[in-house]
Amino acid sequence: MNVRRLRDADREGWDELWRGYLRFYRADVSDAVSDATFARLCDERDGMVGLIATGEGDRPVGLAHLVFHPSTWSAASYCYLEDLYVASGARGGGFAHALFDAVYAAARAGGAERVYWHTQQYNGAARSLYDTVGQLTSFIVYERELGD
Amino acid sequence: MNVRRLRDADREGWDELWRGYLRFYRADVSDAVSDATFARLCDERDGMVGLIATGEGDRPVGLAHLVFHPSTWSAASYCYLEDLYVASGARGGGFAHALFDAVYAAARAGGAERVYWHTQQYNGAARSLYDTVGQLTSFIVYERELGD
Amino acid sequence: MNVRRLRDADREGWDELWRGYLRFYRADVSDAVSDATFARLCDERDGMVGLIATGEGDRPVGLAHLVFHPSTWSAASYCYLEDLYVASGARGGGFAHALFDAVYAAARAGGAERVYWHTQQYNGAARSLYDTVGQLTSFIVYERELGD
Amino acid sequence: MNVRRLRDADREGWDELWRGYLRFYRADVSDAVSDATFARLCDERDGMVGLIATGEGDRPVGLAHLVFHPSTWSAASYCYLEDLYVASGARGGGFAHALFDAVYAAARAGGAERVYWHTQQYNGAARSLYDTVGQLTSFIVYERELGD
Repeated sequence: MNVRRLRDADREGWDELWRGYLRFYRADVSDAVSDATFARLCDERDGMVGLIATGEGDRPVGLAHLVFHPSTWSAASYCYLEDLYVASGARGGGFAHALFDAVYAAARAGGAERVYWHTQQYNGAARSLYDTVGQLTSFIVYERELGD
Repeated sequence: MNVRRLRDADREGWDELWRGYLRFYRADVSDAVSDATFARLCDERDGMVGLIATGEGDRPVGLAHLVFHPSTWSAASYCYLEDLYVASGARGGGFAHALFDAVYAAARAGGAERVYWHTQQYNGAARSLYDTVGQLTSFIVYERELGD
Repeated sequence: MNVRRLRDADREGWDELWRGYLRFYRADVSDAVSDATFARLCDERDGMVGLIATGEGDRPVGLAHLVFHPSTWSAASYCYLEDLYVASGARGGGFAHALFDAVYAAARAGGAERVYWHTQQYNGAARSLYDTVGQLTSFIVYERELGD
Repeated sequence: MNVRRLRDADREGWDELWRGYLRFYRADVSDAVSDATFARLCDERDGMVGLIATGEGDRPVGLAHLVFHPSTWSAASYCYLEDLYVASGARGGGFAHALFDAVYAAARAGGAERVYWHTQQYNGAARSLYDTVGQLTSFIVYERELGD
């Protein structure tokens, strides 16, 4: 088990994980956006950092995507853990914990003082993990999609 | 009633609003951070945009702070509405609605395709407004403060 | 199907259930604490009572741990149902219901006027059972771990 | 502002606070139970500890009642903060924070490794405080009143 920075050579394995993750959220993300996201993560551009967990033979089995951004409440940046995913066949093996360890280390190294993430209120499987590595807050999320 | 970009001359009025807002959250933000935040908002640096609602005599009665940041799900940026506040004496007068109109306009102008914000699950007064100008999601917020 | 008080001879079966239960909560409990807890439950010391559900051949398939404690609201004690677990292979067979019957009988016998327990807000499988044998309250749980 | 252990001479002031607290919960607690509770708290019997916050002239303006009890998960005890109240006229003056400081100190001194408490999910005023001094968990509370 290993967690390291995402790199160009991971594209194929990352694609599979990313597609599995988006299917979970029933989300449509265009190929153009996926291409751009992969490039930004590998290049660590725009505040993005990609992490990948690998199993035997350096095969990618999990991903974490961080987005650093400033906050009005702090001189340090906040680190938004936008995406976290472990392939279904690799669950229960400690990859998610290893990813969180790496997320916190990368956030600290990037100068953030706080990592936060969103999860569906009813996602028990995820929350039972998050309850052990993070802190539930009293906050919920509102949004507004801006039409063209 | 007017909503406009925050500017250097608003410092005194902004301070009062910002302190009232932080008191509501029982939050401690140092003067150094407040100084830096005000400057970033006025200069629209680091993806930050400040909006201020004014009443009679251009007196500041409400504020909104936006933080634009990239997203792995989109080529466009997301706009995080980090802070929103209307002074208690000015509530019920439509300032919050006017601020939201300006937030959405500024987000569009800044190239964002989505605005999102956090609110306490139990903040009924705020949520009854948010339900009319935004969309509740099923997401809750986890966090991890990173010690030194 | 039978539910009875936990006894020394149950140690092996109890261990397996206890470990499965702790795995569910991703919790680390040291062997020393587990040893002490088993002894307190069997001896009914410190307000603790252990119950065990057994299937064919008196094989343990479920457990319930009670902690009696005083309350400022009552002359009688309260009974905190701290742990409840049925092995995954034994679910759907009525063991949980039988455990609750025994919990209530033991609580009454121990002089309690109220049994209460905590469950994860998102644990739908557990809550669909609890809704039939208990009463949801409006209460949520806050905590503070005390560092050394 | 001061927080100290409850003592016999506080009876009158405590009564007023206790009645105000119970009114908040629309709860009926008999005089006999209140008498016994006051005595247990002053004598620190049955795992109970009473704390009282006082303002000018040593006048009681807030209370906190702790119940220490064992846990199956720990060799140390847990400290249940069963009751916390600040008189309405004394709110906003920092008494609740001072009470929490004293609660944590008393819990540590009593050998507890964890303090926990329940609050109504919709009690925004209380939760906005608790969010600053404690930790929201994912747990909710079920109960069963045992008839005669």
